[in-house]
Formats: sequence, C-alpha cells, structure tokens
Amino acid sequence: MPQKRKLIFDTDPGVDDAMALQFLLAAPQLELIGLTTVFGNGPVDLTTTNALRLLDLAGRTDIPVARGADKPLRVPFEGGALHVHGDDAQGNTFAPPSQHTAISLSAAEFLVQQIKAQPGELTIVAVGPLTNLALALQLDPTIANDVVDVVIMGGNAFCSGNITPAAEANVWSDPDAADLVFGANWRVTMIGLDVTHRVNLTGATIAELAKLPGAFNQYVAATIPFYQAFYERVNNIDGLYVHDSTAIAYLLAPELFDCKQYPVRVDTSAGISRGKTWPSLGESDLEEGEALLPWKNRPLVNIAVGVRGEGVVQLMMDTLRPHPRPLPVMKG
Amino acid sequence: MPQKRKLIFDTDPGVDDAMALQFLLAAPQLELIGLTTVFGNGPVDLTTTNALRLLDLAGRTDIPVARGADKPLRVPFEGGALHVHGDDAQGNTFAPPSQHTAISLSAAEFLVQQIKAQPGELTIVAVGPLTNLALALQLDPTIANDVVDVVIMGGNAFCSGNITPAAEANVWSDPDAADLVFGANWRVTMIGLDVTHRVNLTGATIAELAKLPGAFNQYVAATIPFYQAFYERVNNIDGLYVHDSTAIAYLLAPELFDCKQYPVRVDTSAGISRGKTWPSLGESDLEEGEALLPWKNRPLVNIAVGVRGEGVVQLMMDTLRPHPRPLPVMKG
Repeated sequence: MPQKRKLIFDTDPGVDDAMALQFLLAAPQLELIGLTTVFGNGPVDLTTTNALRLLDLAGRTDIPVARGADKPLRVPFEGGALHVHGDDAQGNTFAPPSQHTAISLSAAEFLVQQIKAQPGELTIVAVGPLTNLALALQLDPTIANDVVDVVIMGGNAFCSGNITPAAEANVWSDPDAADLVFGANWRVTMIGLDVTHRVNLTGATIAELAKLPGAFNQYVAATIPFYQAFYERVNNIDGLYVHDSTAIAYLLAPELFDCKQYPVRVDTSAGISRGKTWPSLGESDLEEGEALLPWKNRPLVNIAVGVRGEGVVQLMMDTLRPHPRPLPVMKG
Repeated sequence: MPQKRKLIFDTDPGVDDAMALQFLLAAPQLELIGLTTVFGNGPVDLTTTNALRLLDLAGRTDIPVARGADKPLRVPFEGGALHVHGDDAQGNTFAPPSQHTAISLSAAEFLVQQIKAQPGELTIVAVGPLTNLALALQLDPTIANDVVDVVIMGGNAFCSGNITPAAEANVWSDPDAADLVFGANWRVTMIGLDVTHRVNLTGATIAELAKLPGAFNQYVAATIPFYQAFYERVNNIDGLYVHDSTAIAYLLAPELFDCKQYPVRVDTSAGISRGKTWPSLGESDLEEGEALLPWKNRPLVNIAVGVRGEGVVQLMMDTLRPHPRPLPVMKG
C-alpha cells in the first residue's frame, strides 16, 4: 500500500469545512496530522470550538488543534458568514462543545514546527482566509521549501466572485495574506470558484449523506440544511456547492481537474476589486510590458480551471459510504 | 428602403479605427453625420489629422470632424499605443495630411449640439477612450434621453484584459469616463474583448482586403501590416483582431452576437485592477448585500458575451467588396 499523504488542514468551520473534514478523515489515502483554525466563516473562538467538537464526534481527539489568527493581516475582520452557516457556523445545530482544548502553539507556530520537523512530507490544505499561512511564512520563510504542496480553496481566476462581483470570500477576507501565499516559492494549487461552482451537491445526494451511520456523519448531516437553504435561495440551485470538499477531491483525484499555471496577484486595495485574484496570461498591449511588472518574478500558481463536477461528487460519496475495503493487490 | 441609421463615430485612428470607418462608410444601412476624435492610440492632434485624412481619401469631406479630448478626465495620458499602430498611428504609412480642418466645436460640444438637434435619431459609436462622451454628459446630462443607442468598443466582462491582466485598453485609458458612460441612463452596448478576441481577421482575408480598389481602400490596406505584425508577435495569431469593426458589425447584424444585461462599474483606482469593467450578477454571499451597493441603481449595460466571429468577418468582407447591389424586392 502506498504511503499515506500527510496533511495539515487549515479551516474555519463552517458547514462545508465540516463536510470537507468528514471527507478527508474517510479517505484512506490521507493522514491528518493536525488541524489549524482561523477566523473566517465566524470568529476564531467559534471556529476553534467547532473544530474541536468535530474531531471529538469523529473519535479523533488524537489530532491536535492549533488556534490561529483572529483577524486579517491588515484589513478589519468584517464578521464572517454566519448568515450562510448559521449562528454557530454549524447550521444552527448548537451542539455542546468538546471537553478538549486547543494546543498552546498558535496555528502559525504549529505549521512552522510541523513543517520543519518533517521537511518534504507535509501538504497544507487551507480552506479559509490565508492568514495563518501568511503568518507562518513571516515566522519562517524557509518553510516554503519544505512543504510538498499547498492546496487552497479560494479565489476566482476567470469567473465572477461570490462575495462581491470581483472576489471570492476567502481571498477577499484577507487579500494581503493571499497575495503573500501566492507569492511564496512553494507549489500552490488554487481550487477557486472556477471549479467549486461546478461541483453541485444536489438535494438527492444530500439525502444520501443523511443516511450515513454514526454520530459524526449524523452531526455533519444535521449542519447542512441551513447552509443548503442559503444556496437554494441566493444561488438558485438544487442543493449546494461543496467548496471545501472540492479541495480534498483534488488531493485524491487530480485527474478530475484541468489546471493551468499562471503567476497571480491579488488586489489588496479597498476598492471594488478588493480580493480579486488576477492571473497574468503574460500578454500586454502596453509598451515595454510595464503593466506586467507586478507579476514579474512571481511563482506560477497551479489554477484549477476545469472540473468533472459529477466525478467529484461521486468520489466523495464513494469515500464516505461504508463499504468493505478492497483486498490489497498482492504483488509478485 | 428602411431609413438609414444616423451615427456619430467617436474614434482615435488608429489602424483598426480606419478599418472600422472603411466598414461603416461602405454600409448602405448607416449614415455617418459626424466624426469626433479623442486621444487614445495616439495624441489627439495625431488622431484628428488621421481622421481628416481618412475622410479626404474616402471622398467624404462633407462629414464634419470635431476634435475632442487631449487627455483623460483625471488620470494622466500615458502615451497611447503607437507601438501597436505605428509612429503615425496609421501603420507607418506617413501619408500627407488633409487640407481640411476640424470644426470649431469640441467633440463634446458637437455631440451635444447634434443630439439635441435630432432627439431620438442618433446612435453614438465610440471606439476609443470614453472621455468625449463623459464630457458631453457633463455639459448636458439630458442628452442621455435623446440618444437611440451608444455602442462602445471597450471593456472586458468575463475575460482577461489586453493592456493589463485586468483591463482593456480603452477603458483603462480613462476609467472615470467609462464609469460615467456606463452609469448614464442611455442604452449602452459593450462590445468588449469577450467578443473582439473572437473576431480574427486572418492573413488570407487581409490579402483579400488589399485587393479592394480605390485610393481609400488601398490606403487602409497599407496601414494594416504594421498592426498585423504586432498581433502576430504578441498574441501569436494569424492576422489580427478587428476590435473596432466588431462594434460596427453589431449595428448591422446584432443577431451575430449573444448579449446579456448587467449593471457595470469600472475600477477607477490606481491599483492592479484599474480599468476593469465589473458586471454584477446580483449575487453576493455577503450579508445584507452591502458588497453590491456600488452597483445599486445603476442602469443595465447590454454586454456582448458571445459572437459568431466568422460571421462578422464575412459581413465585413461582403460589405466592402464591390458588387452590384441587389435589386430592391418589390412588394405587392
């Protein structure tokens, strides 16, 4: 059996964060070695409480939780998305908290500690504002060399935003952090709205999810209806988009995605374009190419521009459904 | 025979401006009642000289030329696109100037005068920076009610820019003017890069153009190679994009285009998103919709989002080729 892929999951639970955690914990190819929390869908105290509860319910209190940033690097934290995720950011399920607590290291400190202790082994999956990753880079810029992959749910390359016409919510929430993360010399894959808005979990599939046995699965299923109602009302779709789970699917089945590589800058202004992720195609009609200077010497970001959305949903359901594991193939 | 559509053509010639003028003068459905010039591809003195020469060569010195703005409303004029269009903005053909001169009215004054004299009759086609139109609106905001249509070549709704990764050159050149024009209560159709980058005049078709008889056609053909070489080098295509002619094609055959209607704001900042045209799809995950406030109460802009590009080229060539006009169909 191939070695499991070791992950740190940076998250702001959040209903789709809970769904992504459910998905990744069920995937035999992945090994979650730690969870870092961040403000985003709600304040960081709330998202940390939610993260601890989720691991409790999943019977995985062996996984450490490091509490992260409570606000963006520079811009103010504007209150999150509780109208999307519920007052508890868990679909108004108001479950009791875990008795466990976060470790004493901050998220950024934990990231640096783990990456430096296991160089060349860790993948970071970040599905909230990118503040913790930026703070970790500021603590120790050499971590960029020691990470296998950074996979983020965030941004919009060639499509409209979801929090403004220009921007996706995670990048908009801390545009400075995102610009730092896209500019560091590590391999970043951007799972943005270009693909997540094509991964539609329908009402029928959500009904299937609700049949999964066990306290953890049942809890996650209970968080969904409030979130689903938001999408059905605002986006006028059947069901919802599983933004964060799509990033997990990329780890498991990159062949479901079409990716292209571009240098990326983030609009960090306070204007109407705040938080827009701009890939540069390297073309400019402006003389001497001065318009492309902000993109010069920036690393290429691996941007998912296409996806087989039904394949992602199928993969998620196949991973979550209880089934006898196939016997390992014996070689030789 | 139906009445001809009366036009004022606001332009910064420019090679593709010359091609668009050639196209519209050849179209029996259109009647050019005036030409207004603006800085853009080059300084306004140069674009005015070019406009006068073009009408001279076309034998249309009956059409008045009004010289327009020499700089954007607020941002500096950064020198134009002579590297694209040649040092004379006419493909380095360096033809002698016309003996005719511009009228004494400015472009904005001429626009207001003509529109108020013929309410409900005029269409404005603007293929350069939108400064003249903005100045005309400032002179007399009521003109918005008296214009039939405003068709502009400019902007990029759902695709990358051409002068920066964010922005199209005409809108970038005077973002404040564009934001005013998109915000006035007239019917604006935006023929932007979403469609003009799909209207490719190939080398073979350009060779056909070069065979058209007459001093005007021969002059326009002579301006093309320099411009074509730029596109073949920078955009790596066979031939060129006929940005400005595409706006003329929309007047003649709107059925070749797919359009959608959105309110539009322009990024008027000095940041990396300057000049980006943002349509709002009216969706926001942000609570209370405050992120959509800049788009609130803005008129809908008719944005061309799809085009049958080969149909546009065909229409242009059919219009330009000398051919016996079909006999009018006799009714009854």
